Amino acid sequence: MSVFTTVTESELGRWLEDYSVGTLTEMRGIAAGIENTNYFVTTTGGRYVLTLFEKLTPAELPFYLNLMAHLAERGVPSAHPVADRAGNYLGSLNGKPAALVAFLEGRDLESPTTEHCAAVGSVLAQLHLAGQSYPAKMDNPRGPKWWKAVMPDILPFLSEEEAALLKEEVRFQSLYRFSDLPRGAIHADLFRDNVLFAGDRIAGVIDFYFACTDVLLYDVAIAVNDWCLAADGTLDAGRTRAFLDAYSAIRPCTPIERGAWPVMLRAGALRFWVSRLYDFHLPRPGALTHAKDPGQFRRILEARIRDEHRLPGLMP
Amino acid sequence: MSVFTTVTESELGRWLEDYSVGTLTEMRGIAAGIENTNYFVTTTGGRYVLTLFEKLTPAELPFYLNLMAHLAERGVPSAHPVADRAGNYLGSLNGKPAALVAFLEGRDLESPTTEHCAAVGSVLAQLHLAGQSYPAKMDNPRGPKWWKAVMPDILPFLSEEEAALLKEEVRFQSLYRFSDLPRGAIHADLFRDNVLFAGDRIAGVIDFYFACTDVLLYDVAIAVNDWCLAADGTLDAGRTRAFLDAYSAIRPCTPIERGAWPVMLRAGALRFWVSRLYDFHLPRPGALTHAKDPGQFRRILEARIRDEHRLPGLMP
Repeated sequence: MSVFTTVTESELGRWLEDYSVGTLTEMRGIAAGIENTNYFVTTTGGRYVLTLFEKLTPAELPFYLNLMAHLAERGVPSAHPVADRAGNYLGSLNGKPAALVAFLEGRDLESPTTEHCAAVGSVLAQLHLAGQSYPAKMDNPRGPKWWKAVMPDILPFLSEEEAALLKEEVRFQSLYRFSDLPRGAIHADLFRDNVLFAGDRIAGVIDFYFACTDVLLYDVAIAVNDWCLAADGTLDAGRTRAFLDAYSAIRPCTPIERGAWPVMLRAGALRFWVSRLYDFHLPRPGALTHAKDPGQFRRILEARIRDEHRLPGLMP
Repeated sequence: MSVFTTVTESELGRWLEDYSVGTLTEMRGIAAGIENTNYFVTTTGGRYVLTLFEKLTPAELPFYLNLMAHLAERGVPSAHPVADRAGNYLGSLNGKPAALVAFLEGRDLESPTTEHCAAVGSVLAQLHLAGQSYPAKMDNPRGPKWWKAVMPDILPFLSEEEAALLKEEVRFQSLYRFSDLPRGAIHADLFRDNVLFAGDRIAGVIDFYFACTDVLLYDVAIAVNDWCLAADGTLDAGRTRAFLDAYSAIRPCTPIERGAWPVMLRAGALRFWVSRLYDFHLPRPGALTHAKDPGQFRRILEARIRDEHRLPGLMP
């Protein structure tokens, strides 16, 4: 159960008086969140998701909420935050920063087809294009600096073989500097559980709370590592081709990006291997039950290293 | 057929390159519009409605498009216009002002129930509250000044009895000055065909191109005259009660509004009787096939006059 902060119906009813969403008819806690407290909220005017932020601060949140609004207003299928009557997306409820976001119909997919992967590739390219005009900046809090910083904390928990792999990959990644690659606002966590489908159509991209300003291709690598994954950790050729072709049709990649692609796939795998190792071995209080298997991303990283010379390329 | 301006797939495909909505997969003309040219547009990123404005000018359109955005961003279920990459809602296509708006699932209702009327009452109150912070102003182009101005053009086409009714009602309305009533942004055309329902839930309010700054209660009267209409032109007591109770729960009416209510219902009927008379007897070229029966609103006006002392009031 991940409702860390309890909100009663009468507390929420009063809070909603600052909004133009009508009156509360139903609220229900959502168990799935691991970073925040979420409620489904139904009013006479519609359906929303209420999020109380348990870690992000009022100083950080405008970057995410304004980005969601910026993208939704430009036709990227993503949830729009709801402004209160004073025009603010960010409020405060029971002592926590809080926001109301439009509810999106749809469900996430366990086993995407090539068509689904093409749809996600298109939407990610749309997001990258629309994000180019987003003025705010946010450093990636889970980038190379971070994995270097936390590596010493993690190494004591690893087998000798795993420790060697981690140290070698961090060293390998540090050889590359990607200052020439196109950058901008990225989602940075576009896994299968963050895209809602209504039939074959994408109803919306959700959970922008890892979004940041970074290399666009890194975002593609993170998404492809999840959406195009085969059971053995390799990339499924058909789904990867469909994803990348759809992406490139909307944002064609540069020659430098084509060269960086295999390294970027490894960087995407490393980032999630490190964060999962960290959450697994150094859990925050209350977070343990949700810690995901770090081994999955070690296997993905190993597969990307092994397959470096037969990866589906950025261009057909 | 109401596609006044033809757009080809290749013209639209090129135009969409200025947006972040992905690439065009399908377009289809919409026959229903009488003021504008509309197309359903499907891209790799979602579904939209493209409108080419046949009468409204680039100077007038920002009022409507920004109002739609303002309301949608505050949680009012209404279609959000899509900004291009430069952040503009208003573009130009084949020589016409043009805008892309998010497609809303849902269908309009012929025979609303009390529950539907309550839902519309709630949403209209939300719209009025959210509209209070909308900074732009637009005089009502179909208000008392307009019906006085066009009356001389219409009278020659009317029977003696109809002419007397029209002159008397215009005289009656001119006795009332509603300067004390709450004002703000209103939809001004919230008929059954401008609300889309997905089941019992309102998916969205559409067609804001008669919106203006006027008396809020006038907007309530226009909507009630349509949503709560019985077959004989009177107001159905149950649906009217449900509409007004739901509205008042979100925006309680003032004592002055309660007193003005019967007069306002007549004003709402007069406005549409006059505009239908005008469109019927003085049609613009090409608009004739869509002219609606003016007699319907004469009967509504007569019923409001007749029932003045047994109308469902603003409060239970």
